[in-house]
Amino acid sequence: MIVIMKPGVTTSQMSNVIARIEQMGCQTHISEGEERTIIGIIGNGRPLDREQIQRMAGVDRTVPILRPFKLASRDFHPQDTVVKVNGVAIGGRQLAVMAGPCAVESTDQLLETARAVKEAGAHMLRGGAFKPRTSPYSFQGMGEEGLKILAAARQETGLPVVTEVMEPQMVPLVSAYADVLQIGARNMQNYSLLHAVGEAQRPVLLKRGMMCTIEELLMAAEYILSHGNDRVALCERGIRTFERYTRNTLDISAVPLLKQLSHLPVIVDPSHGTGRWELVEAVSRAAVAAGADGLLIEVHPRPEEAVSDGAQSLKPARFAALMEGLRPIAEAVGRTL
Amino acid sequence: MIVIMKPGVTTSQMSNVIARIEQMGCQTHISEGEERTIIGIIGNGRPLDREQIQRMAGVDRTVPILRPFKLASRDFHPQDTVVKVNGVAIGGRQLAVMAGPCAVESTDQLLETARAVKEAGAHMLRGGAFKPRTSPYSFQGMGEEGLKILAAARQETGLPVVTEVMEPQMVPLVSAYADVLQIGARNMQNYSLLHAVGEAQRPVLLKRGMMCTIEELLMAAEYILSHGNDRVALCERGIRTFERYTRNTLDISAVPLLKQLSHLPVIVDPSHGTGRWELVEAVSRAAVAAGADGLLIEVHPRPEEAVSDGAQSLKPARFAALMEGLRPIAEAVGRTL
Amino acid sequence: MIVIMKPGVTTSQMSNVIARIEQMGCQTHISEGEERTIIGIIGNGRPLDREQIQRMAGVDRTVPILRPFKLASRDFHPQDTVVKVNGVAIGGRQLAVMAGPCAVESTDQLLETARAVKEAGAHMLRGGAFKPRTSPYSFQGMGEEGLKILAAARQETGLPVVTEVMEPQMVPLVSAYADVLQIGARNMQNYSLLHAVGEAQRPVLLKRGMMCTIEELLMAAEYILSHGNDRVALCERGIRTFERYTRNTLDISAVPLLKQLSHLPVIVDPSHGTGRWELVEAVSRAAVAAGADGLLIEVHPRPEEAVSDGAQSLKPARFAALMEGLRPIAEAVGRTL
Amino acid sequence: MIVIMKPGVTTSQMSNVIARIEQMGCQTHISEGEERTIIGIIGNGRPLDREQIQRMAGVDRTVPILRPFKLASRDFHPQDTVVKVNGVAIGGRQLAVMAGPCAVESTDQLLETARAVKEAGAHMLRGGAFKPRTSPYSFQGMGEEGLKILAAARQETGLPVVTEVMEPQMVPLVSAYADVLQIGARNMQNYSLLHAVGEAQRPVLLKRGMMCTIEELLMAAEYILSHGNDRVALCERGIRTFERYTRNTLDISAVPLLKQLSHLPVIVDPSHGTGRWELVEAVSRAAVAAGADGLLIEVHPRPEEAVSDGAQSLKPARFAALMEGLRPIAEAVGRTL
Repeated sequence: MIVIMKPGVTTSQMSNVIARIEQMGCQTHISEGEERTIIGIIGNGRPLDREQIQRMAGVDRTVPILRPFKLASRDFHPQDTVVKVNGVAIGGRQLAVMAGPCAVESTDQLLETARAVKEAGAHMLRGGAFKPRTSPYSFQGMGEEGLKILAAARQETGLPVVTEVMEPQMVPLVSAYADVLQIGARNMQNYSLLHAVGEAQRPVLLKRGMMCTIEELLMAAEYILSHGNDRVALCERGIRTFERYTRNTLDISAVPLLKQLSHLPVIVDPSHGTGRWELVEAVSRAAVAAGADGLLIEVHPRPEEAVSDGAQSLKPARFAALMEGLRPIAEAVGRTL
Repeated sequence: MIVIMKPGVTTSQMSNVIARIEQMGCQTHISEGEERTIIGIIGNGRPLDREQIQRMAGVDRTVPILRPFKLASRDFHPQDTVVKVNGVAIGGRQLAVMAGPCAVESTDQLLETARAVKEAGAHMLRGGAFKPRTSPYSFQGMGEEGLKILAAARQETGLPVVTEVMEPQMVPLVSAYADVLQIGARNMQNYSLLHAVGEAQRPVLLKRGMMCTIEELLMAAEYILSHGNDRVALCERGIRTFERYTRNTLDISAVPLLKQLSHLPVIVDPSHGTGRWELVEAVSRAAVAAGADGLLIEVHPRPEEAVSDGAQSLKPARFAALMEGLRPIAEAVGRTL
Repeated sequence: MIVIMKPGVTTSQMSNVIARIEQMGCQTHISEGEERTIIGIIGNGRPLDREQIQRMAGVDRTVPILRPFKLASRDFHPQDTVVKVNGVAIGGRQLAVMAGPCAVESTDQLLETARAVKEAGAHMLRGGAFKPRTSPYSFQGMGEEGLKILAAARQETGLPVVTEVMEPQMVPLVSAYADVLQIGARNMQNYSLLHAVGEAQRPVLLKRGMMCTIEELLMAAEYILSHGNDRVALCERGIRTFERYTRNTLDISAVPLLKQLSHLPVIVDPSHGTGRWELVEAVSRAAVAAGADGLLIEVHPRPEEAVSDGAQSLKPARFAALMEGLRPIAEAVGRTL
Repeated sequence: MIVIMKPGVTTSQMSNVIARIEQMGCQTHISEGEERTIIGIIGNGRPLDREQIQRMAGVDRTVPILRPFKLASRDFHPQDTVVKVNGVAIGGRQLAVMAGPCAVESTDQLLETARAVKEAGAHMLRGGAFKPRTSPYSFQGMGEEGLKILAAARQETGLPVVTEVMEPQMVPLVSAYADVLQIGARNMQNYSLLHAVGEAQRPVLLKRGMMCTIEELLMAAEYILSHGNDRVALCERGIRTFERYTRNTLDISAVPLLKQLSHLPVIVDPSHGTGRWELVEAVSRAAVAAGADGLLIEVHPRPEEAVSDGAQSLKPARFAALMEGLRPIAEAVGRTL
């Protein structure tokens, strides 16, 4: 960390800051410029609390030198992490496409969708049994009944199941049925939940919060990793901006940036990222071209009857066409579908 | 709800949409313009699922007519709600100022702060025992030990205690010590938690998420109200924008807007709203002038030693000066301090 | 337009609103719901001023039915517009790649770059002679001298020249040297400038403002089109968000969305869109995969000596590798490079 | 400036960076930490180009130490600047309230408004003769005719006139009629225009762009100051965020922050800042309480007939009531109205 002092800092202010830093077990290195004095902190390997220094008299600003995430960083773990899920790999040469309805609505609806996405080449089945909904009056998901239907669909199709878990005490229940625990965007900074899935024996799909930075996403991953679970896949699903024609603004640069900063695989969700089914195919192609390790796509046999997110769901035939169109893009970037 | 059809909509598309609306128990009212046909939906009193209609063939867009919140709306409850907390009223003529440290660090630190803020005229004591922290390596709060210290400070000073609860199963424990349950910004859309505090017998201070709209804040309040708890105070604490000199951008218009849309009291948090202690006094004055029912302010006896958010904490003497400066503003808008 | 009345609207308020609408030459269509009365306006073909109606007593909100842009919309002009520039087509089957330095710095620097990008397969040469800089103390461009150097580079390489024009009275001067007039992001809503290039006899490359919606971009294009210039290409170059690891957030969904809403060609600028050269290649691939008609890429022979935007400029060898990598992606989406 | 090197930087990379810095006429100061090497740059008093260093091999990041603005900074000019305008002072003990219609529509409309706002206590008259409008089909202002009407209203009421200038070559014309040249939000980074008003002999009201940071606002002021015009007032008028109930989000913290960073007076525009007349009074009070030096408020005798921004305009009686309500707030913060 670097400490930039205010113009006109006094000797006693300097001494206090230096004393505090040394008290934290670190050494200092003073650099006097013409206009400002700067104190470099030579660390003891442990993260320092910037705020404490920042608030001392005579200090103008502090500047961190190191990124705050460690276990999630590529510096710490240079090789790509490949998350293995019941025979499917997320982060390998083959892309991992997870498809299915936003919410599990019935056995028929889910099985019909599962068969269709498997036929089209999807590698995993997604579907929500517990649904975070903006309104308390909207459908909140089928709960455990939905989990059972997901398990039945896996049984029939062989597709591993990705589904959301919304609270810490539900982790054991959801883990009993699901192959991958999804952390939704609204829960990306629900630290109790991150702690709980960090202790679970299941891979985690961690969605970026709609107003969270790349650094915060990696810090959320760090929570999970630091509690012992190293099977984490990151998911870019759009951030909230001023633009109103789309539901969110998908941050395509996040894909190469996350791959540079971290060893964890990166999935893109073009359905939530755009909120409009007409844009899902083009954005799916872009994601693969940018280096994503997989996609999370909403598919519903009759979107106009969907209880949730119908506007962004593809019909099975469109999904099959999307998969076909992805194949040459995947090849162009050295991947398979 | 209004349904705007695409140009060139066919008769069979029109029939399908009308049939679906009637199937939902509603009536339709067709209006044919020169360029577009519009279908008005005359409801049955229950909210409709816009997305289902929106996804039907021939439909361009749907437009909601009514606001999605009810129990939280002023239309439903025209009088101001006054939330009573152990002898303190939030939302009455007297402002409610809640002050204290970001985190409870020790008995000494908390008692020293509690005495100072009481002396300066604060009405309630704030302090976190469970802390949501961006980094898993930062101090996560003292837990139940912190709750006990808060209760001891209440015992001595008589100030009711506001403290954060972070997960549903902790609600009983925190309720055993706290007078007001605080829902933090990161948990504003943690629906399991909203459900749990909705069933608790404690007032709730609901902080706006940094990525959440006014409408979403009111929908979060609606969750709590709809589960039976009508003692909810809303808190504007800044939203995330592109501006980098402040930690968040405090949305001052939210104060009069929330007072118009809702009957619930509105508190402003200038400490998180700015992230810089030098701005807290000016923004506190602005909040009271804009009609806020109270303030939530971070005070720490030695901010440069605070384990969390020192940069935005006031020293007791500054807090006392702030309270003095607020008095004439409060009077100017017909309130007392 | 639809007018949604407040609950409890009076008969005389209704009459006033209807009278005003009829005074504007339009007809009304009343729809009385259980909770709200709605007035549909059947137009006379001319756009109505929403604000006037919105402000009348008894009116809650107004909702526009039609998009505000016409000449720029695909409804008005269903076929793709192909902008022809000195033998290069923007918007045809072949992609149009425009490459070159941020700023023209010298004859040597520009010629060296122009030869290199031509060799690598670029179709046009970009370079700024007039530079909008955040600081009055930064290099502001070489001015007319820079334009002459650009013209000399075109003479040698045959590459048409794209360069920025910053004020209305400079349009004739810049047009005397440039093949395409670029409107920079900060000038997207400089209406005097849009008017001036609308009357020029040169194609225009219109960059999206960093704070502007898709609708506002199309309205800016509408300004140019409505003044008689129909050779306009749109350029997505990233919008401003809270994310700090990248300079802007490139809105990849804007590509398919603009292609749906408008007939104008769409160019992507991955250099400004990311602000980091390491991300330019991945984002270029994404843009082509998403359906962009071309790219605008910063290339500098020695980025560490660039007077502007060195951090986002590619070296010639990286640019050549990028072009190679784009070829299979272009083919995968039915385009050529 | 500080240069943070990458882990594993080589000796030759270090030498190159140091050589480049010395070539720029500066000295270096090396600090070797356990994980990173840092180079402090001891300047020659001139600003350095960060980007050039940032792009060199071995460099991770550069961190500026000094703020990029000088003439606008309070460090440079510790006393408050008071801008004098025809007998009215902006930035003194007395607040400066500028009121009037968004656009000049006719002699009658303007004179009626001017008399009313003068009667209510306004100090200056605002009104647009040249209007930047999102749509080319909207009313673009009365032009010079509007300027003449403004001058006539000044003649009758004695109120100095504030009006917008949109392009460099119009500066002489507008200066011939107006007392204060307003730079609109969309033109805050129109550098040619900033240059032109910097050379004019008229005070300037500089509005913050809706997606511009505080630092960029101060850099825009720096443009004007550096061209010789030191009569500049800054105006916070709301920034663009994701919130949809208001037109913009007024950044109230900008008021005390600008007063700390700069000596220039700060005006608040609650009309554009909210976009809704119902919120204007509360936000005006907040602005004064936060320390603003004045207000810019839209007033129209018949807002429902306004050709522009009727939804945010106050009727004269509401404006008079607002002024009454402001008086005690102004007194509470030691100001007069």
